[in-house]
Amino acid sequence: MAYTVDFEPIGRRIEVDEGESLLEIAQRSGIGLAAVCGGVGTCGRCVIQLMSGTLSPPKEEERTRLGDNRLAQGFRLACQAHVASDCKVNVPPSSLTTAQRTQVEGRGQEVPLDPLAQSYALQLSPATRQDLRSDATRLCDALQALGLGYLRVDLAAAQRLPSILRNHEWQVTAAVMHDKVVAVLPPHNPPLGIAVDLGSTKLAGYLVDLTNGDVLAAQGMMNPQIAYGEDVMARLTHAVQRADGARQLQDVIVRGLDDLACALCRQAKQAPEDVIEAVMVGNTAMHHLLLGLPTAQLGLAPYVAALSEPCDLLGRDIGLTFAPDVFVHILPNIAGFVGADHVAMLLGSGIYRAEDVVMGLDIGTNTEVALKVGERLYTCSTASGPAFEGAHIAAGMRAAPGAIERVWIEDGKVYYQAIDGHLPVGLCGSGIVDAVGQLRKIGVLDERGAMSLDHPRARLGERGPEFVIVPRSESGDGKDIVLSRADVSEIQLAKGAMRAGAEVLMQEAGIRVRDLERVVIAGAFGSYIDVVNALRVGMFPPLPPDRFEQVGNAAGVGARLVLISREQRALAAEIALQAEYVELTNDPRFTTAFAEAMLMP
Amino acid sequence: MAYTVDFEPIGRRIEVDEGESLLEIAQRSGIGLAAVCGGVGTCGRCVIQLMSGTLSPPKEEERTRLGDNRLAQGFRLACQAHVASDCKVNVPPSSLTTAQRTQVEGRGQEVPLDPLAQSYALQLSPATRQDLRSDATRLCDALQALGLGYLRVDLAAAQRLPSILRNHEWQVTAAVMHDKVVAVLPPHNPPLGIAVDLGSTKLAGYLVDLTNGDVLAAQGMMNPQIAYGEDVMARLTHAVQRADGARQLQDVIVRGLDDLACALCRQAKQAPEDVIEAVMVGNTAMHHLLLGLPTAQLGLAPYVAALSEPCDLLGRDIGLTFAPDVFVHILPNIAGFVGADHVAMLLGSGIYRAEDVVMGLDIGTNTEVALKVGERLYTCSTASGPAFEGAHIAAGMRAAPGAIERVWIEDGKVYYQAIDGHLPVGLCGSGIVDAVGQLRKIGVLDERGAMSLDHPRARLGERGPEFVIVPRSESGDGKDIVLSRADVSEIQLAKGAMRAGAEVLMQEAGIRVRDLERVVIAGAFGSYIDVVNALRVGMFPPLPPDRFEQVGNAAGVGARLVLISREQRALAAEIALQAEYVELTNDPRFTTAFAEAMLMP
Repeated sequence: MAYTVDFEPIGRRIEVDEGESLLEIAQRSGIGLAAVCGGVGTCGRCVIQLMSGTLSPPKEEERTRLGDNRLAQGFRLACQAHVASDCKVNVPPSSLTTAQRTQVEGRGQEVPLDPLAQSYALQLSPATRQDLRSDATRLCDALQALGLGYLRVDLAAAQRLPSILRNHEWQVTAAVMHDKVVAVLPPHNPPLGIAVDLGSTKLAGYLVDLTNGDVLAAQGMMNPQIAYGEDVMARLTHAVQRADGARQLQDVIVRGLDDLACALCRQAKQAPEDVIEAVMVGNTAMHHLLLGLPTAQLGLAPYVAALSEPCDLLGRDIGLTFAPDVFVHILPNIAGFVGADHVAMLLGSGIYRAEDVVMGLDIGTNTEVALKVGERLYTCSTASGPAFEGAHIAAGMRAAPGAIERVWIEDGKVYYQAIDGHLPVGLCGSGIVDAVGQLRKIGVLDERGAMSLDHPRARLGERGPEFVIVPRSESGDGKDIVLSRADVSEIQLAKGAMRAGAEVLMQEAGIRVRDLERVVIAGAFGSYIDVVNALRVGMFPPLPPDRFEQVGNAAGVGARLVLISREQRALAAEIALQAEYVELTNDPRFTTAFAEAMLMP
Repeated sequence: MAYTVDFEPIGRRIEVDEGESLLEIAQRSGIGLAAVCGGVGTCGRCVIQLMSGTLSPPKEEERTRLGDNRLAQGFRLACQAHVASDCKVNVPPSSLTTAQRTQVEGRGQEVPLDPLAQSYALQLSPATRQDLRSDATRLCDALQALGLGYLRVDLAAAQRLPSILRNHEWQVTAAVMHDKVVAVLPPHNPPLGIAVDLGSTKLAGYLVDLTNGDVLAAQGMMNPQIAYGEDVMARLTHAVQRADGARQLQDVIVRGLDDLACALCRQAKQAPEDVIEAVMVGNTAMHHLLLGLPTAQLGLAPYVAALSEPCDLLGRDIGLTFAPDVFVHILPNIAGFVGADHVAMLLGSGIYRAEDVVMGLDIGTNTEVALKVGERLYTCSTASGPAFEGAHIAAGMRAAPGAIERVWIEDGKVYYQAIDGHLPVGLCGSGIVDAVGQLRKIGVLDERGAMSLDHPRARLGERGPEFVIVPRSESGDGKDIVLSRADVSEIQLAKGAMRAGAEVLMQEAGIRVRDLERVVIAGAFGSYIDVVNALRVGMFPPLPPDRFEQVGNAAGVGARLVLISREQRALAAEIALQAEYVELTNDPRFTTAFAEAMLMP
């Protein structure tokens, strides 16, 4: 009598006690089967479908509620059915009291699992001479028996269906989107989704099980477009000036996405063809290059996007081969330089629904600034340049082994920390900010960034005054690692643009610095910087450090939320419509603020 | 004062009389502009948009009804506006009293023009620093001003939009389908559609102007799949037995469609990229091979289709290159051997809505038979074989120059007519039917098909009795053209299957031959045969010849109707659902009827 029941698609196996109905088993196991009538067989809500094994014979209540047709397909009322062998039963979403909860959390918000593609495990009856329905009709009829309306079957699903049915005893999992069956999978494969944050420098990908929202794999890789230009402007130039430039840039990013998706699937031991949905976010330029949209008008005043609305397409529309039939959703852009990645950040960080006064900063070559005040949400983009990524800095480098990521100066001594404990060879962004902040702290730099030579490590180099962070005796390549006056100027320009953008948004909203209750710093670089040193440099509005939150890749979180929730998808579209974009070019307030913001506190 | 007004997209140029309002001009010219209020400016229905030229200044009524925003976009009330120069105005569909009528007629039914993609000619305002909307947003806003709801812009349209706008002074034609802008075209290019009947032997294509339903070009070509098998069964075998067989067959038919589409566009001097919609019909096997659907289950009992529902896809989904973004609609199938071409035939011939008792025959290698009795519509398919196409007949050939298409015997003399007046070299289908019918008439053939040798032209050849239709002295290749007893048997088998199918449908419907009020014969072969001789052969139920109608390519007419009318598209789907398919395999009624139907009257 020691039977077990597997509840699908939840994936729970429960041991059965004598005399229990399926409803009782579900209830004591925390599976929220609906039972409005209290389990007496009259409400008809606790419908399940038997996939394998034997249940007690159907009772009169079940004949009345379900009819012979659905009974023949294995549908039963959980409150009336008892287990007579080891069983597997499928619980349709319509029989659950509440949507499943998922683990993906965007800054404390728990989002109910409700992906665009809803999955159904089905047992179909085989084709016979007496039942000549096409495979697709058979599938649609079974879905209609579950209470779904009139459905169409997408071509890709129709192509895969006959072999799945005949190789798996007419069992299949169907994924339904709006009024269409968009994919069919072998009966025990979960439908998968991929969320990707397309950064100018890095791609971050997440493989998600759409039946429970679990992240099965996460992986990053360099954006292969870097071969065509370090920053977005260089790539736009390539796209416009070379006859085949745009196509080249699209091809390499699409091949990169193919590689990323395959790597994620290998990591999670899943089949790429089971990936049925993808959500992608990126800045407006990355967005246009990925989608093959014209970019000429994006690089010239007045800098307008070809497309800012949310966009739905199939993988093959942009040449993806890992799953040509995958449904791809691209989040909306706000403006020419405030893209879908910023929308995803505002969603993933929860800024869009903040009730306090919050500023959001997504620091990169372009830094997007957002400001939420009451019901209004302002955004702008500032050309902060690549200095924070180590470019245009004499000893600058990317965050790689051997890059100094931390610098602190105490009692005249210079301490540092290089990535992975390697011998130091250069400075990455967070190390540069630390170095400038520490030199300002000890007075080697004045508020204008002028460098005093009154320190043993300070000297006059070929390019002017410079400060030795690491002497050649300690460095990995036998050269001094220095920060020069010119490097400091680069940082002042970069942070000045960012601060001036923040300033203009506050003026637009009619608030002052002290009104800011929180500043949210998103993105990889933003997560690594030392906020206190950044405040010394004057990167951020002068506020107590405890008002700053470093939230990591909030854009990636936002993309994952959209992947698993229709509500979040709609919210993302709303955010893009709601955001008020402030164009800084030719804004006299920006010019004024910029001059001031170059100074260090 | 002799101005003219061009009304678009109707394409009417009207001379203006002094003092006339645009509404008055439209009314006297038969353009059904809505004017509920009688032209006093209060109902706001007669909205038009000025595309070029000058109108009288807006009146107070127009400010009230339209608002400054729409006035700025050129919208006016036709009842209030007078012409002040040569003008071009656009009439939105919402301002018309009735949908336009079109010339495409399916057996006398006039179908209102109402394609799935509705077109709108638009003048957008240029992007400026003060108006940074993306091109796609700008387009959607303009469409919303016309009263359309919230729209998305498809990727392909977004890709083409920026250059059209900037090369045509921000004018564009947008095609809207459901809630999406699916295509954008330069301002003066009409959106085009293509309808194709994919026959096993021939492809027939029609290029249609979707703004008025006109057929701009029509063309036929051989189905290039013939290289892989003359009949559908041979091709299915190729698809299943060769590893890459299905892909090969898909590739050649898709290349064939590309060639056909390009030829149609060349003929009409139109750009293939302006083709935004296509409708395709074919038998179930052609349908599956075109769509890359598995065919193994189609060739094995119980012969079920993978997909029988109507199917929507993009050109690129099946590899079409003439317009990768074209929206393709494939009509539904009824069963494994009653395909979308039969649905189109039932639609195009009007059989589906007949109120009398009608039989429909679409004669080919498989002959589909339909029977409409009251509200019910029965269909079946019979394997009539390729004899009617000249195959398996000693002197048989396709309908090509030199093929005998007519035979008559009078006073012992044999007369014939060869295609294009060439010297005769063989017999095509209609010639074969004539020959058998005439030999039966003069008693050379008895009712079992036995051939008497009592005629000067009759003799005993190597394969048994034969009749010389053309002696070698008159033939093109110096050989006798004969019809043998064995050839007659082939025809008896072919027509026997067809007749038996018709018989079973009549039994199923409970009617007798004399109850048939009409017999509709569709298809190319069916149009060429001589009905009286066919009746002598016993191909058709014995009825007076005036009950037969030869309607030509009714499937092609049906495909065109679906292309230009959403209502017809919905009707096609209904026909497939409504049709009751009768499976003849293993039906004892068929076996009995077949034995009898082999006889000639």
